[in-house]
Amino acid sequence: MTVLVFGTGLIGTSVALALRASGEKVLLADADEATAKLAADLGGGTVVPDLRDAKGVADVAVLAMPPAAVAAALAFGQEHGVADVYTDVASVKELPVRQARELGCDLSSYVPGHPLAGRERHGPAAARADLFLGRTWALCPLPETSPAAVEAVTALVRACGGDPVTTDPATHDRWVALISHAPHVVAAAMAARLAPSSVPGDALKLAGQGLRDVTRVAAGDTALWTEILLANPGPVAEVLAAVADDLAGAARSLGVSAETPAGDVTGLLERGRAGVARIPGKHGGQPRHFTVVQVVIADKPGELARLFDAAGAAGVNIEDVRIEHSPGLPVGVAELSVRPDQSAVLLDAMEAGGWPVRR
Amino acid sequence: MTVLVFGTGLIGTSVALALRASGEKVLLADADEATAKLAADLGGGTVVPDLRDAKGVADVAVLAMPPAAVAAALAFGQEHGVADVYTDVASVKELPVRQARELGCDLSSYVPGHPLAGRERHGPAAARADLFLGRTWALCPLPETSPAAVEAVTALVRACGGDPVTTDPATHDRWVALISHAPHVVAAAMAARLAPSSVPGDALKLAGQGLRDVTRVAAGDTALWTEILLANPGPVAEVLAAVADDLAGAARSLGVSAETPAGDVTGLLERGRAGVARIPGKHGGQPRHFTVVQVVIADKPGELARLFDAAGAAGVNIEDVRIEHSPGLPVGVAELSVRPDQSAVLLDAMEAGGWPVRR
Repeated sequence: MTVLVFGTGLIGTSVALALRASGEKVLLADADEATAKLAADLGGGTVVPDLRDAKGVADVAVLAMPPAAVAAALAFGQEHGVADVYTDVASVKELPVRQARELGCDLSSYVPGHPLAGRERHGPAAARADLFLGRTWALCPLPETSPAAVEAVTALVRACGGDPVTTDPATHDRWVALISHAPHVVAAAMAARLAPSSVPGDALKLAGQGLRDVTRVAAGDTALWTEILLANPGPVAEVLAAVADDLAGAARSLGVSAETPAGDVTGLLERGRAGVARIPGKHGGQPRHFTVVQVVIADKPGELARLFDAAGAAGVNIEDVRIEHSPGLPVGVAELSVRPDQSAVLLDAMEAGGWPVRR
Repeated sequence: MTVLVFGTGLIGTSVALALRASGEKVLLADADEATAKLAADLGGGTVVPDLRDAKGVADVAVLAMPPAAVAAALAFGQEHGVADVYTDVASVKELPVRQARELGCDLSSYVPGHPLAGRERHGPAAARADLFLGRTWALCPLPETSPAAVEAVTALVRACGGDPVTTDPATHDRWVALISHAPHVVAAAMAARLAPSSVPGDALKLAGQGLRDVTRVAAGDTALWTEILLANPGPVAEVLAAVADDLAGAARSLGVSAETPAGDVTGLLERGRAGVARIPGKHGGQPRHFTVVQVVIADKPGELARLFDAAGAAGVNIEDVRIEHSPGLPVGVAELSVRPDQSAVLLDAMEAGGWPVRR
């Protein structure tokens, strides 16, 4: 399989590196030639100097660019016949598909796609061959898309280590609104309450891990996120309106009087618990079925190493780790997630290693 | 100093253990005698069999019980003269203070308090002497409270390793509404959108760390959280109403049309970013000024140990660690937070240790 990666930013270059690691032949192109050359220097493949002279060079072309640029690139690629099959990696699917229809593109050779992987950094230098390993990669074939095109792109996804999940563009956009776009705005709306006008710095000394977690993603790039939200406005608006309704209802139910029956609020909390329980845990397995073991550690080089050495020596696999912050003191609590049947073994190992342990 | 801990659950027993570790004399009492005995067996102090026969036994009494039970315990303690000074540890302050006034308690000897520490587990067996180490401990003296009482309770907080922050009950309740109670409901409202009726399981395969973080706290106990919210209804309702307004505004601005100017949404994202930036980071220092180094690791015993060994050997202090999940594959990405000036040293060490590293 020869693949043309058109657009060599983080995702495009990672696709190129992943395919090369799988032994595929990769061609590279980017509107910015220096970017394409950097991707080639990183081992991503060979730069195609001018796509207008590249008729039939590739089996599949991967259009790795922002949503609003996909349709024009598809039209351009098809006009010059650079590949038999086309896919893209944009984070929304209705917008590029609508624009491709408007531009009169051939939809039989187009398989809209979206790998659920990313990093906080951008550009080819941040690319990784293993970016898609085990990650879900949504494919949204259209009624017009040919089975052969779907087969070729599915093979490409697997060659990158991704896990293909098939749906349609509208459903995809509702899904990402729910699991990514709306949560970002909800985090921002909570974090927006922390303005200096309403909260003095002293109040924020009371903040714990809960507030940090709820608001973490709101630190993301504003311009990038505005673009993402505007490319998926309907589904995001629908989720936000529903969340706003629930919160306004909870506020009313609490605000009326302390003695009001708590129906609304309790119901919302219960629905929330049920929702969290549905989010898959590590390795796509059953969610949150790990036991958390807490260990107090000194905050100095080597302490975590000593801790993980002891766990490793005991044959315990640590599934996840979180360090609880202790504002003001050089001491922390490491929370180690392990399989329930391994927690006693880990506790024994910690105790033998001299760590204070509570069972 | 002799301290009576009245209520030997997680917080009360942790106070007892912390004070004993500081060399103070501790007496224990609980409405459930078996619970008090367990706290004593854990090294928390000596059980007082009947507080009605305990006149003058303590300098300070710590009332460690839910908010709605504090005022009655204060009245009881003062009636039998068990201590010179009283404090409590409840997570809201206006409710117990109002009830204490209604019961005609002596407020000159009462210093309302709230240590900002907790665990997901409950009961004396989960207690830790180091639970309050470096944690903020709010004190809310009343106009009637004597300086001597404040001094005694401040000394108790420091003996527990806590960091006393002084404010008043109303301000305290607004603060905790903002940094803890409202974020819980916001997380629940987002998680409530993940009901099976609106999201098939396939959609949740697309979920990443962002959704997990935003919704994590919503997994908390519903009954407990309903009680917490109902004890602080006004301040929580105020924050929730404001968040609901912002989200409804964002939904309207997105829903009108994709071509609408994005003013509302971008503005909300910017306010969110500014808010997140104000949350203090580890050790109460400047927030989020760490560099994140990502390393791909095999998910098997010993791998994290090898990683932390290499970091420790290089003299690099890992400030925080997070393991990114790779659904479906036994490979993960460890994200190590280090001081910016240590990131190059860490990268060199990772490279020397054979880990794939991208700079």
